Amino acid sequence: MKDYAFGVDIGGTTIKLGLFETKGNLLEKWEISTITTNNGKQIMPDIALAIENKLKERNIFASEIEGIGIGVPGPVLDDSIVNKCVNLGWGIVDVAEDLRRLTGIEKIKVGNDANVAALGEMWKGAGIGHKNVVMVTLGTGVGGGIVLNGQIVSGCHGAAGEIGHIKLNEHEEEKCGCGKKGHLEQYASATGIVRKSQELLRDTNRNSVLRDIHHLTAKEIFDSARKQDELALEVVEFACHQLGLAMAHIADVIDPEIFVIGGGVSKAGEILLEGVKKYYTEAVFHTCEHTEIALARCGNDAGMYGAVKMIL
Amino acid sequence: MKDYAFGVDIGGTTIKLGLFETKGNLLEKWEISTITTNNGKQIMPDIALAIENKLKERNIFASEIEGIGIGVPGPVLDDSIVNKCVNLGWGIVDVAEDLRRLTGIEKIKVGNDANVAALGEMWKGAGIGHKNVVMVTLGTGVGGGIVLNGQIVSGCHGAAGEIGHIKLNEHEEEKCGCGKKGHLEQYASATGIVRKSQELLRDTNRNSVLRDIHHLTAKEIFDSARKQDELALEVVEFACHQLGLAMAHIADVIDPEIFVIGGGVSKAGEILLEGVKKYYTEAVFHTCEHTEIALARCGNDAGMYGAVKMIL
Repeated sequence: MKDYAFGVDIGGTTIKLGLFETKGNLLEKWEISTITTNNGKQIMPDIALAIENKLKERNIFASEIEGIGIGVPGPVLDDSIVNKCVNLGWGIVDVAEDLRRLTGIEKIKVGNDANVAALGEMWKGAGIGHKNVVMVTLGTGVGGGIVLNGQIVSGCHGAAGEIGHIKLNEHEEEKCGCGKKGHLEQYASATGIVRKSQELLRDTNRNSVLRDIHHLTAKEIFDSARKQDELALEVVEFACHQLGLAMAHIADVIDPEIFVIGGGVSKAGEILLEGVKKYYTEAVFHTCEHTEIALARCGNDAGMYGAVKMIL
Repeated sequence: MKDYAFGVDIGGTTIKLGLFETKGNLLEKWEISTITTNNGKQIMPDIALAIENKLKERNIFASEIEGIGIGVPGPVLDDSIVNKCVNLGWGIVDVAEDLRRLTGIEKIKVGNDANVAALGEMWKGAGIGHKNVVMVTLGTGVGGGIVLNGQIVSGCHGAAGEIGHIKLNEHEEEKCGCGKKGHLEQYASATGIVRKSQELLRDTNRNSVLRDIHHLTAKEIFDSARKQDELALEVVEFACHQLGLAMAHIADVIDPEIFVIGGGVSKAGEILLEGVKKYYTEAVFHTCEHTEIALARCGNDAGMYGAVKMIL
């Protein structure tokens, strides 16, 4: 194996890049902006340029690069082709082929961002020592990444790990971002948690410190729950219930060693973890009751770590 | 690879054995009884004897046997150790080691019966040409087997594919066989379908041909539904709804190429398949809406085929 490799995590606003030694340590990380105008046509050339500049700066030859791993926010087929990234303005893009042509580096592997983050947490975060990891990312939406036997599970339509769209409520009337109804994402994402609070505030006269907050966020709801605000506690309990139930479904299907919960909402910490564990244990098949559930540790770097791990 | 291999499927009443050429064709299949008395201690010696006799009968030397694959009705760890088979009277049994000692044949692989059946259907049945198959077995209970990238997914507690215990109803008051409540198995197994009919017959005054049947079976309920009996139609619709929803959950997690539905209840055929497809499509993440759903084709031989496939 050659000496160096790059991990690249393409997000909707920034692209995170890392230069790694192939023995595993991160030498340097940095970010560039994601230019999504003009159907995101500038994204691949920008990444190629960033890599080229870094090589020059550090006097590294392209021939010393083992490969480049890339995480993208959309479904990926054959470790290479991205099938629509709404956030980037992309239709069908052969990311691996494009970057190969632009950099001259042969070994390029592409993965869905949530899957790649799961790999990153397995390698350098909460999943260290495990080979069967499910990562749940609670942000604006709910994403999932699945690693079995050390390998990302992408699914035959690139849709494996789309756990935010597990249907939990057949009576929901509002639509999920995907167009269907009653999905986990509508209850356990930051957006979903805020929505549930607003519903309770609107439909009841109950007292709550949340009434005094103009622009409600999931963080404030968790903070208020920690201060024993009853309405906030109910909202948190509900989100934990839905997430615990969905995680039980996942365990009933693939029985992983560990669940890692990441994303902005996971900063809520223990109150989230304890609630999820309670409902997970209640719902899951008995032999999986003690499966570890942990908070993510790599933060925003999970994607970059996982991306390069695909190469190593 | 040597010339021959055995596939063995251990069930609660019979053990099915198959002698195969390692190029894949079945030479002969036969059955012996499962003796479950005395904690099932006789089972492994009986299998060893059946194999030994077959070798003598056909003038095949043990040295010409590539290996033996075995399916068992319980959770399996490390392709070898069975962790409690209630139906066989077993506690923890190292099936591979026992059979190695009894037969002198080195390569022994053990798999859960539902997982092994999935492998069998992939190899010789409805899943031919696919490498990512979920098999759903609807019998007295509901079992599941998962094959990803051609390999059985066992899970870290041997509980992967325990899809009969996906919790679908949080308001269920009766217990599932596993002790928890509201599981798929309570609605889509033969037992569950009969139970639902009995509930409707008991709790309503509705007319139904089912009222005239003394010992109601799932087969009679499906037959009556086909003849447009309204109550039977409602029961079938309900079972299809629950199964379709659970299969959507599975697709949201691992996005397989095909679902194969087997077991006694699957003999209901098209009425079951159409019902399940309707509710699956409604609930699943949109990119998985067209995933193939087919009826099993190997019947009772799926386990024997899958067992030997672990060796080949």
